[in-house]
Amino acid sequence: MQKINIGLIGFGTVGTGVVKVLNENAKIIQDRLGAEIVLKKIADKDIEKDRGVPVDRGILTTDAFDIINDPDISVVIELVGGIEPAKKFILKSLENKKSVVTANKALLATHGEEIFNCAVKNDVDIGFEASVGGGIPIIKSMKEGLAANRINSIYGIINGTANYILSKMTNEGGKFEDVLKKAQEKGYAEKDPTYDVEGIDTAHKLAILINLAYGTNIKLDDIYIEGITRIAPLDIKFAKEFGYRIKLLAIAKEENNRIEARVHPTMIPAHHPLANVDGVYNAIHINGNAVGSVMFYGRGAGMMPTASAVTADVIDICRNMRHVPAGSPIKDFGDKFKQGMGIKTRVSPLSYLPSEIKKVEINNMESLEMPYYIRFSVIDKPGVLSKISGILGSHNISISSVVQKDRKVGGAVPLVIVTHDAKEKEMRQAISEIDSLDIILDKTVHLRIEENIGAGE
Amino acid sequence: MQKINIGLIGFGTVGTGVVKVLNENAKIIQDRLGAEIVLKKIADKDIEKDRGVPVDRGILTTDAFDIINDPDISVVIELVGGIEPAKKFILKSLENKKSVVTANKALLATHGEEIFNCAVKNDVDIGFEASVGGGIPIIKSMKEGLAANRINSIYGIINGTANYILSKMTNEGGKFEDVLKKAQEKGYAEKDPTYDVEGIDTAHKLAILINLAYGTNIKLDDIYIEGITRIAPLDIKFAKEFGYRIKLLAIAKEENNRIEARVHPTMIPAHHPLANVDGVYNAIHINGNAVGSVMFYGRGAGMMPTASAVTADVIDICRNMRHVPAGSPIKDFGDKFKQGMGIKTRVSPLSYLPSEIKKVEINNMESLEMPYYIRFSVIDKPGVLSKISGILGSHNISISSVVQKDRKVGGAVPLVIVTHDAKEKEMRQAISEIDSLDIILDKTVHLRIEENIGAGE
Repeated sequence: MQKINIGLIGFGTVGTGVVKVLNENAKIIQDRLGAEIVLKKIADKDIEKDRGVPVDRGILTTDAFDIINDPDISVVIELVGGIEPAKKFILKSLENKKSVVTANKALLATHGEEIFNCAVKNDVDIGFEASVGGGIPIIKSMKEGLAANRINSIYGIINGTANYILSKMTNEGGKFEDVLKKAQEKGYAEKDPTYDVEGIDTAHKLAILINLAYGTNIKLDDIYIEGITRIAPLDIKFAKEFGYRIKLLAIAKEENNRIEARVHPTMIPAHHPLANVDGVYNAIHINGNAVGSVMFYGRGAGMMPTASAVTADVIDICRNMRHVPAGSPIKDFGDKFKQGMGIKTRVSPLSYLPSEIKKVEINNMESLEMPYYIRFSVIDKPGVLSKISGILGSHNISISSVVQKDRKVGGAVPLVIVTHDAKEKEMRQAISEIDSLDIILDKTVHLRIEENIGAGE
Repeated sequence: MQKINIGLIGFGTVGTGVVKVLNENAKIIQDRLGAEIVLKKIADKDIEKDRGVPVDRGILTTDAFDIINDPDISVVIELVGGIEPAKKFILKSLENKKSVVTANKALLATHGEEIFNCAVKNDVDIGFEASVGGGIPIIKSMKEGLAANRINSIYGIINGTANYILSKMTNEGGKFEDVLKKAQEKGYAEKDPTYDVEGIDTAHKLAILINLAYGTNIKLDDIYIEGITRIAPLDIKFAKEFGYRIKLLAIAKEENNRIEARVHPTMIPAHHPLANVDGVYNAIHINGNAVGSVMFYGRGAGMMPTASAVTADVIDICRNMRHVPAGSPIKDFGDKFKQGMGIKTRVSPLSYLPSEIKKVEINNMESLEMPYYIRFSVIDKPGVLSKISGILGSHNISISSVVQKDRKVGGAVPLVIVTHDAKEKEMRQAISEIDSLDIILDKTVHLRIEENIGAGE
């Protein structure tokens, strides 16, 4: 049986998971692939630590270049994370004609163009299934399963930490700060949770999904980003009363060759499948012009789910490598299987041919129009609603419903307004004006509403 | 640009959808594939009928063999449906070294082994994404995206008609017969709904999923099949009271190299994501030993979703065909692109190498153990519960809860019992004994409960 040598850089949680999957599922992987995947070397700064998986100590090295420069290794798995030295490791591997598998969403979201171009130039593959949605095969589905579709919209819950916090606040109550603290104690949130709760990690993943959907290379700066730190228990309660749930969503929509790209806490109808994606689960809802609405759901992180995606990419690349074309004089690699032979770049990194990657126009956030939920903290006296609705009216914002309940919070009373479609720009101006009134006791909270997810069906 | 000629046999609803997708999304498909897909011929018995899509009349033929025997056609799409002549068309195409794409679940579930072997023997591909779950890329996900996993379980809502009827009964009330009638009027159910409501179509699809998951070739007879015709509004109501929903599920589980394979109406916890899959939507919930639980959701049928899957398969096959391996003397097909070149069978029909396809042991339905919901129609008099629970006890069936409500239905009162885990065989014997008592006024209904879908997490 053919043997294909691979190397692993980064022996952390996910790296350990990959070793586990390759060990425990070796037989089933071989039965499906028709070749043996041999983990020839593992590089990590710390090769003394016991990772809890059986590994021949002889394959461990502290020097990633022992893998990158090994002519007998065909596939390099990069699980170092962060920008450098991960970027250097990947580019050097590609230049050495090795295919690369990575879970590094931050790197791909910020330097994807350079990395993909390098892979194409060197006629090797780059797999990044694990970069979005953990074990959910969303990247492959977008590149291949939905390849016949023009993508109308993408709505994703793609950060498990933020979703865990919002789910807890929704199902069990509690303030953001307290729930975050508990999540940190349970290991569901990092010590520094900024990337997760401020929406940055979600934006990294959205950039990757947008680039796949539209064959482009948008930058992180092209995405409007807002986190969940302002969400108060009151907002969660009002959302429920209005028949909504609050989720941190990654949103992309295309219309007339212009796209929207944004990450923010969003009110969505409580009956929508996305509204019931709870805890650390992820889900990506896609509407394509042929397929209609599809949704992919699963664990968005963790050792084994992420390892499942990394290993699927390795199998995919190996399936390409072990094949020769019909009509080729090379009938069978057999024992003479040479590392690195077989086909490469069967599917381009972003699904689109490199020559078809184009710049897309992105709609400015301020130009968007949608319904809003606005919660004002007002003094409880007559005339307040009239003043506020007057200012909203002067900005062409019309009101769909108003709720004022006697729930005093620090002397203030919440006044909640749900609007019809309004312009983001007008909304910001109106709130700024209203917040300068002396009837307003605390900063106004406004949340965007997505009423028709996957509409057009 | 390379051109790849394809032929379409069967110009019905889905065939028309394929023509629409190839027309409307031609540019985006070309940008992704790097080749032009040319629909060279369409065969149908009726070539006079206006299908509502622009088609050059010159490509229409009434003879499928005009396509099957055309040396310039590389890929044949079979959308005739049924067993014959679809089977003959597929086998002849494969023998003529053409790759085939089909949506024909009934054929694959009953003659899959012969068709897959024929594809392998002739070194061509067979795509059948459209055979399960409409546009949901479930086949590709199982063959590739989850290829690193041992599959622990599959739970599928994979018949839109049955799910539509059960959803309507759950959300709006009504008897099975009345809701079916409305579904037929709306075109959601066939005139003869047997395949859909009796679970046969679901079993066809389950056979395909099982063969993919476990690398085997089970027969339809290996699957226990029970439809939804016995479900009464009372059962729907009681299910809700117990915190369940009733869904027609396709279920497969593996343990110690033995599998369960069954289709029946099932009570599942109301909070489970599958419980909220309503209307004509499909969903497939898979638990893999690495990925944990993942769920795929979307429209399970219809012109455009199914066409999305068919076209994805065509693109997939074309992506194989247009490639030459690194190191091959054939550098670029260029203008000399020859139909049928490129690689084939990059992924085996069932993902597993043909040499690894094995017989699996299937657990007899009677040997299974699970909790049950049982609804007895009893005479309302003292001692009834004692008699029934006595017989259940003599069969080692222990009771978890009992509900007897004063809801007279034709003189009878419903007595509902939910059991702890019990053996199917004992359950059948107990019910048979109980049904012969004179306190029983109507046939007892029993439904299986799946409490821990995707358990082990």
